[in-house]
Amino acid sequence: MAGFLDSLPTVSLSGQPIDRSPAALFRQSCRLGSFAGVTSGHCLSFVQANVVILPYQHAYDFLLFCQRNPKPCPLLEVTDPGSYEARILAPGSDLRSDVPLYRIVRGKEEEEQTDIRHMWRDDLVCFLLGCSFAFEGALLQAGLGVRHIEEGKNVPMYITNIPCRPAGVFSGNLVVSMRPYPEAEVPKAIAITARFPSVHGAPIHSGDPAAIGIRDLAAVDFGDSVELKPGEVPVFWACGVTPLVALRNAQLPLAITHSPGHMFVTDRLNSELAI
Amino acid sequence: MAGFLDSLPTVSLSGQPIDRSPAALFRQSCRLGSFAGVTSGHCLSFVQANVVILPYQHAYDFLLFCQRNPKPCPLLEVTDPGSYEARILAPGSDLRSDVPLYRIVRGKEEEEQTDIRHMWRDDLVCFLLGCSFAFEGALLQAGLGVRHIEEGKNVPMYITNIPCRPAGVFSGNLVVSMRPYPEAEVPKAIAITARFPSVHGAPIHSGDPAAIGIRDLAAVDFGDSVELKPGEVPVFWACGVTPLVALRNAQLPLAITHSPGHMFVTDRLNSELAI
Repeated sequence: MAGFLDSLPTVSLSGQPIDRSPAALFRQSCRLGSFAGVTSGHCLSFVQANVVILPYQHAYDFLLFCQRNPKPCPLLEVTDPGSYEARILAPGSDLRSDVPLYRIVRGKEEEEQTDIRHMWRDDLVCFLLGCSFAFEGALLQAGLGVRHIEEGKNVPMYITNIPCRPAGVFSGNLVVSMRPYPEAEVPKAIAITARFPSVHGAPIHSGDPAAIGIRDLAAVDFGDSVELKPGEVPVFWACGVTPLVALRNAQLPLAITHSPGHMFVTDRLNSELAI
Repeated sequence: MAGFLDSLPTVSLSGQPIDRSPAALFRQSCRLGSFAGVTSGHCLSFVQANVVILPYQHAYDFLLFCQRNPKPCPLLEVTDPGSYEARILAPGSDLRSDVPLYRIVRGKEEEEQTDIRHMWRDDLVCFLLGCSFAFEGALLQAGLGVRHIEEGKNVPMYITNIPCRPAGVFSGNLVVSMRPYPEAEVPKAIAITARFPSVHGAPIHSGDPAAIGIRDLAAVDFGDSVELKPGEVPVFWACGVTPLVALRNAQLPLAITHSPGHMFVTDRLNSELAI
């Protein structure tokens, strides 16, 4: 009852048992340090999550920031203070090591690490947010391309001129991910992703990048730029890197998130999130 | 962008201007003390909200309780500490007086009042949650009856045996509202309400009340019992009175909520919540 993620089928539509072990094995590779890359295109059936880890002192403000900005910050799970296991999304996981690459923000300083076990504290709270990688499998299954996967790159991400609703110490502009489609395929891409509201859902904009404050598609704020072919329209989805911008603005003594594109792979199937 | 409630149309499908003043006038009646009754059947076009008011000290736990139990606790708005205006849902409102009847919970003591201005404090936070009254207009428009409206009563509500996910000091079982339908109409009632996830959405159960721990439909825990006609099936929706049970269990020095069925009427149209 409690959440949409509670009832987990154990067999697929075809009657085959659902094997959730690829996700656990992928997390183990991250934990052992053998994978520290971008997760787009990996474990395509499984829900990938944005990760934000904060001291309890700032947890209320961040939870409220998510409540007020559900498009970029669709919350999937929040751990109890001190707990580093995603009990609902990935039982047995260790959020201190199972993200391929972490971004640690201390005031104006930022650094990246593959493991944060050495800096764990009992007052840290982990927030897991939906990621648009979860609908990329559905796009591919529908015969739509996903350009950054085709090019073997991270998804292009941009900071827009659209302000989020502030909450306590957190404020900042919306970050979007971009995927280009031929004009005729845009409605299909929108309809498919609208079925996944808990991983950003329908795009927030398609068409002129300048309308949302993006001057040059080649100048990404995060990730990699991709080719826009003649006749293609850039389509923009709210992105879970939005919290990184809010963390930067807050200039807290300590905040931890994933490095953009380096997501936490959960045991849940993307199909379990569709409405 | 930020929330699903931001873009407010000013004209209806037929091109007529949308008049939101009936909601403001209704709130004024509550404010002046001339209306202190059950709101089901009133202002049918407008979103009605469950209200929970808590000291900031307990706000994180309650916000997390809502995040972990989205079916009974679909959050529509959270005010900043000390603010009693629902800026998003009802600009100009006063949450200290615009609810027809308040339930004040102090430890094991409960009392009801029509106004809480005299007990307002700068550390109080107001939570507004979706209410199933918002889809009753859609049920009626589809030609489905709503029994408690027909009988001029409050909706029947029951405490189930289904535990919510706990969060900090808050825990308790799910509360449901019940509407009876002839078996042939149940799928239609489910399909219609599924379009309104932010006001509890699809039912959590239909059929045998005992399956969710309800022994006797005549023995309501809140509201009024209604007639179940031969051939009718009781259909159960998650209910925003669930927080009252959690507030009772927490036994805080002070917690305030609406009296069950006595909702806060917002400026928003139910149709603006449909997906």
